[in-house]
Amino acid sequence: MKPNSFCTVAALAWVLALPAAAQDVQAGRQRAQACAVCHGPVGLSTTPDAPHLAGQPALYLAAQLRAYRSGARRHEVMNVMARGLTDEDIAQLSAWYAAIRIDAQPPQ
Amino acid sequence: MKPNSFCTVAALAWVLALPAAAQDVQAGRQRAQACAVCHGPVGLSTTPDAPHLAGQPALYLAAQLRAYRSGARRHEVMNVMARGLTDEDIAQLSAWYAAIRIDAQPPQ
Repeated sequence: MKPNSFCTVAALAWVLALPAAAQDVQAGRQRAQACAVCHGPVGLSTTPDAPHLAGQPALYLAAQLRAYRSGARRHEVMNVMARGLTDEDIAQLSAWYAAIRIDAQPPQ
Repeated sequence: MKPNSFCTVAALAWVLALPAAAQDVQAGRQRAQACAVCHGPVGLSTTPDAPHLAGQPALYLAAQLRAYRSGARRHEVMNVMARGLTDEDIAQLSAWYAAIRIDAQPPQ
């Protein structure tokens, strides 16, 4: 077994040992690597026209991803990114970003 | 002068003494009181289908408010809320939410 295959199997075995909600979070964390270019590795945007996703409500995130997938919400990059997502992909991505805890500190 | 009028004048005088960017932030803070029902007093959403706005990039926020105003982005509440906003209102609201510092803590 090649090292990469071993890592994949080990990661899969680890994910499958978790409760369902935690599985979604960990699967979403893996899947979200494609999102990190614009939305950052922990959901803090790295570009001024992309939103932070960290800590957003899962219901909101899932609704937006479905809207990008259907074209109801228009964005030239996101419509392409969301086109191939399954409902499970969307649930996992939403679970991952929603699981990130955020704190807010307003200015004086 | 009634107490409420005094507070308004005092707040206005205080805002006008600030640099332009800080004026936008403070004016946006006042204006955002209408948004707090769904998006929380410091931009942390209080309802699962509304996004957190705290710390979002101003460019992103302004683009979304303009899209809600024009109807390019559809949401039955936000299209109504944004309909009457001027470009200055949008700049101030965006400046306020962008000025809130956020930290993110991902799950293990």
